Amino acid sequence: MSIRIAVDLGGTHLRAAAFRTNKTEPLIHKKIKTRSEGEPIFERILGLIREVMPADEPISGIGVAVPGPVDPEEGIIIQMPNIPEMRHYPLVAELQAILNVPVYLGNDANLAALGEWRYGAGQGHDHLLYFTISTGVGGGVISDGHLLEGSAGLGAEVGHVVVKADDEGPVCGCGLHGHLEALASGTGIANYVEWRLNDPETESNLRSSATRNAVTIAEAARAGDPLALEAYRRAGYYLGIGVASFLHIFNPSIVILGGGVSQSRELFWQPYEESLRANVFNPAYLENLVLTTAALGDDAGLLGALALVETKELSL
Amino acid sequence: MSIRIAVDLGGTHLRAAAFRTNKTEPLIHKKIKTRSEGEPIFERILGLIREVMPADEPISGIGVAVPGPVDPEEGIIIQMPNIPEMRHYPLVAELQAILNVPVYLGNDANLAALGEWRYGAGQGHDHLLYFTISTGVGGGVISDGHLLEGSAGLGAEVGHVVVKADDEGPVCGCGLHGHLEALASGTGIANYVEWRLNDPETESNLRSSATRNAVTIAEAARAGDPLALEAYRRAGYYLGIGVASFLHIFNPSIVILGGGVSQSRELFWQPYEESLRANVFNPAYLENLVLTTAALGDDAGLLGALALVETKELSL
Repeated sequence: MSIRIAVDLGGTHLRAAAFRTNKTEPLIHKKIKTRSEGEPIFERILGLIREVMPADEPISGIGVAVPGPVDPEEGIIIQMPNIPEMRHYPLVAELQAILNVPVYLGNDANLAALGEWRYGAGQGHDHLLYFTISTGVGGGVISDGHLLEGSAGLGAEVGHVVVKADDEGPVCGCGLHGHLEALASGTGIANYVEWRLNDPETESNLRSSATRNAVTIAEAARAGDPLALEAYRRAGYYLGIGVASFLHIFNPSIVILGGGVSQSRELFWQPYEESLRANVFNPAYLENLVLTTAALGDDAGLLGALALVETKELSL
Repeated sequence: MSIRIAVDLGGTHLRAAAFRTNKTEPLIHKKIKTRSEGEPIFERILGLIREVMPADEPISGIGVAVPGPVDPEEGIIIQMPNIPEMRHYPLVAELQAILNVPVYLGNDANLAALGEWRYGAGQGHDHLLYFTISTGVGGGVISDGHLLEGSAGLGAEVGHVVVKADDEGPVCGCGLHGHLEALASGTGIANYVEWRLNDPETESNLRSSATRNAVTIAEAARAGDPLALEAYRRAGYYLGIGVASFLHIFNPSIVILGGGVSQSRELFWQPYEESLRANVFNPAYLENLVLTTAALGDDAGLLGALALVETKELSL
């Protein structure tokens, strides 16, 4: 019996856990801050892996989930938001040189899709779309049982597709216009509220709110604030348009929504589903289609990294 | 040595050819009209296959390319444009029952992608996008060496993604608004010209033209007609926006344009490439990316059907 190690390298927290084959409950699980003054992040990753490694059992592989683009084939982190020291960092080679076990690397949203497929809401669905809706919109795609990565690992950037007129849509975090992320992310929701509040006629309790973000706007919506309700409805509407295009491309049997915003399901689900249905060009795409929310929650990255090791070992 | 048979079942013409292993020059090739009064289309397909079957050599498999949606797993033609008798037609079962060899079925645009990958402009590119731009916009995707089909064979409908504002974009052949097909197809080009000619101020020699379609508009553009030139430029511009979104999704190493409109390359290539570059959110998607036109021409469907048999036999 051997052990698999999963690492979730987040911008704020670094988590690692050890798993026995066919178990998704970790033997041991540790979480620390990603940064600590004076200690390189690589040393912190290595140290945490060693803390969760059992002393007396062999390790078969280590999976690492990273936010931002990676080159999975070369094992290189291309970029991590807000962590310049990890730019073009050959994490796989560095870890393998020291630990002498296979190490696999993946983008955290892609791996969350893999995790949901192997252990979560998407079990049994070999054609699966996963969207994580939080500050941005990311995601992952399983097509015919394969994780979509693209020629250089940059595929499945599902937030960066046009859903509103090219040059009329709002600006996306990437600088372009009208992307799904600009319309359906938490940031998109907050930007819409700010834009509407520029009009002094707009009535909303959010006007006097000290912080306006997806969480406070959801609270206001639950309290009946019309602008907050409209902001979530609008996000759901555009999400449905975007997902409809993805149905035409991938013809999945399940679409899973994860991330913080998806926890306010009641605020956007109806317009999401309505616009999705209205924007599918053939009802065949809706036959046997499951629309649901993610099952793995905060463990998505960690279990995704575990799923990566598993699929590599099983050559799925 | 065994023989593979490829069939291209078009709306107008029906073609069949026999190929030796590792050859793309047919031993024998026949072409007839798809319809003939009094004879069911199935009988015509069967007859043509028998005509190209060598008498003294074993057949290993038959591939059939069909316009419109198919269920490749079940071997059923779901629908063929303008040919109602082939609706929900179990072509694979019918042919196998009589000929007793494996038969494989695929959508012609998907198979053209497979053909370009195995024998055409995309050789060596395991991450490939193919668009066929003619009356509509279709296409196919090779992702990590796998043909993208989707859970029910309805994937890779690459013409039916939004590239212009949801409810402001022009109407697509499918009835929805703002799809790539509505903006970049031959029909989209012709519709734009009609729309502009509604304005009596619009100056164009096309006003007095008896037939206005993608071909006559291309001729006018080559003669310097400003409206015709603008119509092609606009199609190229929106094609670039659409393809940019597909780069974010699939991160391919090559994008191949086929179909009749792509033969007017000089009329839309520059705006296509410019808007593609301008709408990619990270220059990494453009590194080592090949932008080119299809190599197989009218043989795309037939060689795609051959590639289908080959990939099935090699379990690629």
